[in-house]
Amino acid sequence: MTGRFACQVQWGDCDPAGIIFYPTYFRWMDAATWAFFESVGYTPKRMREEHLSMPLVSADCQFLSPALHGDPCEVRSRITKFGGKSFVVAHEMMRNDGTALAKGSETRVWGRAGPGKPLKGETIPEELKALFRAK
Amino acid sequence: MTGRFACQVQWGDCDPAGIIFYPTYFRWMDAATWAFFESVGYTPKRMREEHLSMPLVSADCQFLSPALHGDPCEVRSRITKFGGKSFVVAHEMMRNDGTALAKGSETRVWGRAGPGKPLKGETIPEELKALFRAK
Amino acid sequence: MTGRFACQVQWGDCDPAGIIFYPTYFRWMDAATWAFFESVGYTPKRMREEHLSMPLVSADCQFLSPALHGDPCEVRSRITKFGGKSFVVAHEMMRNDGTALAKGSETRVWGRAGPGKPLKGETIPEELKALFRAK
Amino acid sequence: MTGRFACQVQWGDCDPAGIIFYPTYFRWMDAATWAFFESVGYTPKRMREEHLSMPLVSADCQFLSPALHGDPCEVRSRITKFGGKSFVVAHEMMRNDGTALAKGSETRVWGRAGPGKPLKGETIPEELKALFRAK
Repeated sequence: MTGRFACQVQWGDCDPAGIIFYPTYFRWMDAATWAFFESVGYTPKRMREEHLSMPLVSADCQFLSPALHGDPCEVRSRITKFGGKSFVVAHEMMRNDGTALAKGSETRVWGRAGPGKPLKGETIPEELKALFRAK
Repeated sequence: MTGRFACQVQWGDCDPAGIIFYPTYFRWMDAATWAFFESVGYTPKRMREEHLSMPLVSADCQFLSPALHGDPCEVRSRITKFGGKSFVVAHEMMRNDGTALAKGSETRVWGRAGPGKPLKGETIPEELKALFRAK
Repeated sequence: MTGRFACQVQWGDCDPAGIIFYPTYFRWMDAATWAFFESVGYTPKRMREEHLSMPLVSADCQFLSPALHGDPCEVRSRITKFGGKSFVVAHEMMRNDGTALAKGSETRVWGRAGPGKPLKGETIPEELKALFRAK
Repeated sequence: MTGRFACQVQWGDCDPAGIIFYPTYFRWMDAATWAFFESVGYTPKRMREEHLSMPLVSADCQFLSPALHGDPCEVRSRITKFGGKSFVVAHEMMRNDGTALAKGSETRVWGRAGPGKPLKGETIPEELKALFRAK
């Protein structure tokens, strides 16, 4: 199962070298993960109402080919590992002409915060794991 | 003639108050202007090859209703004034449920830089003005 | 009384034209306002604990001179108007060589949110107004 | 030899969970690398005039402790490897109370672009390597 998140390199995403400023890819990966969860029913609204969040443990990215202003792109996301409370999302950033721009991964914790209480890691529900398998 | 730029409020576009961080609207306005020009044939690639750019003279925005993470939105853009070398783009930021989130404007100069030369304002070609009228 | 917020134009704050990407100035203005309030005792920690926030009504900026990567700058902020629940902060963005880069303003509401409750505008305490007059 | 880059968690650097939005660390790492090179004489101005740049091969970060709005921080940077055309910068993000917030690394290429020409990797000058050893 693969999530697909469409995006485009904006003028302000680029640096004076005329190519994408690299933290942009991490912004894309974050947005792609949220969109991937939305696609299985965990919408931003639901996450908010259930005080759920997905803080990061680590993130990495390899930059394969420079992207330019205006390039239409897609982030393809897969969950490559479900642990007890953590999971790994692998992302491929593709330009729409088929060029692989970058590939990276995020390791995240599944967490819940009470109203006014700090976030705590929580066991990932089997029901959630099943949603990603089923699709 | 109205440009339409689809966007969505991302997790990282929001602040600890849980609503959109206001400079995000200016990022959207900038991207919407570039998309508007792309829609009449002035693509990022063409702008780059002809060393054209659109630096800002001023920008403003009124914030009407707070946007939340996940909100699907659209920026509607119109050119409200063409001067000799400058022009004004008015933007409306709408949530897809019809709520007006914000409205703003940008005053920009039409400029050209030689390779390695600083940008200079240039008379806006009649052909360009006509494209926005015709559409 | 004038707040002073030191900042620098970073590589990622600039666009392919090699100058500052304009929404950066709004990020600076926002940070400068928070720093200004911190300087009179309303620290981020206090604001958080008292559930206080300062959402925007409007913002504007005029861009006077382009800033380049590496430019050391300062935002000078003054409160030019205190209303009942709203106030205006005027900002001047100066390069350290004395060049005025941009000037703008923000109109903000003084607001408070309960834990898990939406933010509501609140009368600005006289004590807060006095702090800005006294300094 | 260690570079030191002072920074602070801004309101707009945080997300609805009230903690730093993780791509912010990559923005910090990028700025810290540029500041590190500036500290040995490779200023942004010089880099620009000599058409030098430092595009990324890869970047990674581990997130150790959440940072909050207002936290005063420092990025401590060291060059852990100089190859022929590439180098690795290791970064530690510290809160000023001594808490390690995150640690990451960037692998970069030393590159030069002609005016209007694309960037090409270039052998890192011995003189540059010596500057980092000497300090």
